[in-house]
Amino acid sequence: MGEKFEPLNPAFEAAVRESFARQGAMAHLGAELLRVAPGQVEVGLPFRPEVSQQHDYFHGGVIATIADSAGGYAAFSLMPAGTNVLTVEFKISLMAPARGDRLVARGRVKRPGRTLTVTEVDVIAVADGVETLCATMLQTLICLPPDGARGHD
Amino acid sequence: MGEKFEPLNPAFEAAVRESFARQGAMAHLGAELLRVAPGQVEVGLPFRPEVSQQHDYFHGGVIATIADSAGGYAAFSLMPAGTNVLTVEFKISLMAPARGDRLVARGRVKRPGRTLTVTEVDVIAVADGVETLCATMLQTLICLPPDGARGHD
Amino acid sequence: MGEKFEPLNPAFEAAVRESFARQGAMAHLGAELLRVAPGQVEVGLPFRPEVSQQHDYFHGGVIATIADSAGGYAAFSLMPAGTNVLTVEFKISLMAPARGDRLVARGRVKRPGRTLTVTEVDVIAVADGVETLCATMLQTLICLPPDGARGHD
Amino acid sequence: MGEKFEPLNPAFEAAVRESFARQGAMAHLGAELLRVAPGQVEVGLPFRPEVSQQHDYFHGGVIATIADSAGGYAAFSLMPAGTNVLTVEFKISLMAPARGDRLVARGRVKRPGRTLTVTEVDVIAVADGVETLCATMLQTLICLPPDGARGHD
Repeated sequence: MGEKFEPLNPAFEAAVRESFARQGAMAHLGAELLRVAPGQVEVGLPFRPEVSQQHDYFHGGVIATIADSAGGYAAFSLMPAGTNVLTVEFKISLMAPARGDRLVARGRVKRPGRTLTVTEVDVIAVADGVETLCATMLQTLICLPPDGARGHD
Repeated sequence: MGEKFEPLNPAFEAAVRESFARQGAMAHLGAELLRVAPGQVEVGLPFRPEVSQQHDYFHGGVIATIADSAGGYAAFSLMPAGTNVLTVEFKISLMAPARGDRLVARGRVKRPGRTLTVTEVDVIAVADGVETLCATMLQTLICLPPDGARGHD
Repeated sequence: MGEKFEPLNPAFEAAVRESFARQGAMAHLGAELLRVAPGQVEVGLPFRPEVSQQHDYFHGGVIATIADSAGGYAAFSLMPAGTNVLTVEFKISLMAPARGDRLVARGRVKRPGRTLTVTEVDVIAVADGVETLCATMLQTLICLPPDGARGHD
Repeated sequence: MGEKFEPLNPAFEAAVRESFARQGAMAHLGAELLRVAPGQVEVGLPFRPEVSQQHDYFHGGVIATIADSAGGYAAFSLMPAGTNVLTVEFKISLMAPARGDRLVARGRVKRPGRTLTVTEVDVIAVADGVETLCATMLQTLICLPPDGARGHD
């Protein structure tokens, strides 16, 4: 919150946007990359029946999916050029029904690291211009070196 | 693991299948409800580019989505007729790259309760018939009474 | 962050301090209740070998213990008089070695609720006056009515 | 559950017992190392007021502390000689009141790895010979090379 990070990769925004564009799941859900800053990324998602659960709110898994992307790319924005990012784990609390026209997931780096990075992500539902905090995530990511084909080892 | 649960709702399987069918997100991802037993539910998902991340594995958020459904319906299978289930929170560890033709999420109730239920879910990736454990989830759910339009209160 | 909460129990501070004083584990560890405000509680812990792990830092479990108390009492400060609070679950990320003269756990309510409350807690290690963020927690608590002898049901 | 692990360090049991003996917090709480097998460790804790919360049950943080040790040493038992283990994060669900004469935390490796290991831990409360599952943990640990003075980088 307010902490300033210096990106190691001057082309961090292009790297984030390129990787996001390769995620089939983001396009399939209809998610958009909104804001990319060093250590901060926002992802938006308009409501459609295709992203709903049984009561016509946003599905919890869909909320987790865009939060995972927002946090993951917030971490990736601070990683060296040529590396890759993988989610190690996350925990999400679904705090209020996610009802509205669209969701915005706001990810920010809480603690950057050479190997592991911790992020937090708040997810807001917007209904008729009113924002409700509906979920919050705490996430761990790992930076994989350029030749690291495998993660989790 | 092996514990036997007595369902309170004799029509638990129909209740689970009906609710699953109303989740737009499950159909949109291509997820299928495989097995429904008291306290145990399996959800399957074939691979397609639409559920991938940037390295052509299953997207972590998609893995979380089907795990959330498998665990949530495992909990719901033990709840009284007419109630609803909501995910309070979950934590997922992505332990190995989720590569393969399809995923199977196996949810089971760890501790049922009148208000809160805890489940665990293992997610397996199947590639050429070989199973790899790629993720595991611990999840908390809340049972909402029939007239409880809102949760999380 | 900065949100103002109205306590339902005018004697919230006395209720928190009285309950904290009854926790044998807090006295045994040497933890002190520092600050009690509506939705915000701080707990401090001086370093001693009795709270260490094998490398002479604060033990991760001890960090979790004071964070659990700080978050739990932050939630309790907003609950009605006569109720009780129980931790449903928490997740903690240990982000940096917890080295120093003392720890401070700063809990704040992220989302209050009639039944469930979500808090977040940052834990700071203080060494020679310099603060390091060493851990962060996301926690779920349940409010038990006065006659509710048991929780988790 | 039932998976067999081959330890990389033939002296794994001595390494675990030596490290446990150096944890001031374990001795201070009165915890004992019960069982050490490849990928499986049990830690016990007798009840005393010194480990209680405000209702005279075991304190949630204390439960987390012995669970963290059981899982951490289960992971450590599979790591190469000379390395160190650090907890990256854990999530614990407190599923039933922890009432009884003693606790037993049973940690087992869910997925070993060269860098990161995932464990799960069940915590049982024993009252008059009857066991109750009172908590369950999912935990991530990192293996630090012999010269790695710092973790989390």
